[in-house]
Amino acid sequence: MLRGIIRGHIVSTRKQESLVGSKFMEVQILKNGQLTDEYIVAIDSVGAGIGETVLITTGSSARLALRNTSAPADAVIVGIVD
Amino acid sequence: MLRGIIRGHIVSTRKQESLVGSKFMEVQILKNGQLTDEYIVAIDSVGAGIGETVLITTGSSARLALRNTSAPADAVIVGIVD
Amino acid sequence: MLRGIIRGHIVSTRKQESLVGSKFMEVQILKNGQLTDEYIVAIDSVGAGIGETVLITTGSSARLALRNTSAPADAVIVGIVD
Amino acid sequence: MLRGIIRGHIVSTRKQESLVGSKFMEVQILKNGQLTDEYIVAIDSVGAGIGETVLITTGSSARLALRNTSAPADAVIVGIVD
Amino acid sequence: MLRGIIRGHIVSTRKQESLVGSKFMEVQILKNGQLTDEYIVAIDSVGAGIGETVLITTGSSARLALRNTSAPADAVIVGIVD
Repeated sequence: MLRGIIRGHIVSTRKQESLVGSKFMEVQILKNGQLTDEYIVAIDSVGAGIGETVLITTGSSARLALRNTSAPADAVIVGIVD
Repeated sequence: MLRGIIRGHIVSTRKQESLVGSKFMEVQILKNGQLTDEYIVAIDSVGAGIGETVLITTGSSARLALRNTSAPADAVIVGIVD
Repeated sequence: MLRGIIRGHIVSTRKQESLVGSKFMEVQILKNGQLTDEYIVAIDSVGAGIGETVLITTGSSARLALRNTSAPADAVIVGIVD
Repeated sequence: MLRGIIRGHIVSTRKQESLVGSKFMEVQILKNGQLTDEYIVAIDSVGAGIGETVLITTGSSARLALRNTSAPADAVIVGIVD
Repeated sequence: MLRGIIRGHIVSTRKQESLVGSKFMEVQILKNGQLTDEYIVAIDSVGAGIGETVLITTGSSARLALRNTSAPADAVIVGIVD
C-alpha cells in the first residue's frame, strides 16, 4: 500500500457509468513520513477528507474495497492513518 | 488512477483483432495539476478528445471499462475531468 | 519480490472492515543489500518485527498470502530473510 | 499501453514449456514520440520486426493477446503503429 | 518481461508455507544489454544459477510459471538467455 495526504477532490461529470458516485481524491504520496512530489488519484472508500493521511491500495486489489467490484478502478483509499 | 491531458491519436492498422475499433490516445500525465514529462497510451471509453483532461485506469481494472473485457488493454480513459 | 527492512508500524483505526486485524508495516527497500530511499507499506503475514529484513510480494499475488484473500491488499510480507 | 521501437530479438533455448515458440523482442520505449532510455522485453503477437514502432500491453492483460493465455507473459506487442 | 543477471541467492527460513522450496534469486536488471542499478528478487523456475542472464516475468502472470500457482509470488525467472 501507499501512504499519502489527500490534497484535493477531482470532479468528473462525464465518466464510466460504473464510476458514478465515486469520489476521486488527489493524494500526495509520503515516504517514511516525508512528503514526496508523487501524486495518485484514488477513489475514497472510508469517508476520508482533504488533509487526512490515508492508506491506498492499488491494482486489481483496489476494486475489492468498492461496493461495485467490477468498477474500472486501480487505486482506492482503504484506511485513514491515526 | 492517473490524470492527464490527451496530446494525440495513435493509428495502428495491424493489431490484435480484439483491439479493432479501439481509439489509442497519447496522454501527458499531470501531477497535482502540473504537466510532467510522463506519457501513456490509453484507449478511450468516454468519447474524449485531444486537449481534454482525463482520468485513466491502468492494469487489469482497465479492461472492465471496455465493451470487450477480454481485449489486451492495460490503460483506458474512464472519465473526463470538468 | 522486494527485499527491505521494516522501519515502523502504521496504525489505522478507521479502515475497510476486511483489513481489521492487519498489521501495516513501513518497509525501506534494499537493492543488492544496499538501503534505498524507497518505502512501501506492507501487511505482515509471517510475524516479522521492526528491524527485520523481509521479502515482500506485491500486486494481486500479495492477497494469496493473507487468510482473507479478498482483502484489498497489494503488498504483503511473505518471508523473513535469514 | 506503451509505444516503442523494436531493437532486437532475444533468444532463450531453456525456458518454460508454455513459452516455447514465443518471440522475445527488446523494445525501446518512446514518450510523446521521443526515444527514452527505457527498455522492455515483450512477446510479439502481430508479426512485428526490428525497427518497427509498436504498441505493448503489460500485466495480466498481456496474456489475452497470446494463443496460450496461461503462458507466464507480462508484456506483449499487440499492434504496429502506422 | 525483464532481462537481468542473477547476482545472489536469498535465504528465508521463516516464510509462507506455499513458498517452501522456492529458490529466491537477486537479479540485476539489464536494459538494452547494459547493467543498471535496478534489482529484483525472483523465484527460479528453470534451474538458473548465479551469473546467468535470465528473463523474468512479473505480476500475476509470474505465478503461472510455478507448480503451485497460488503461491504469493510476483516475479519468476521463466527463461535463460542464450
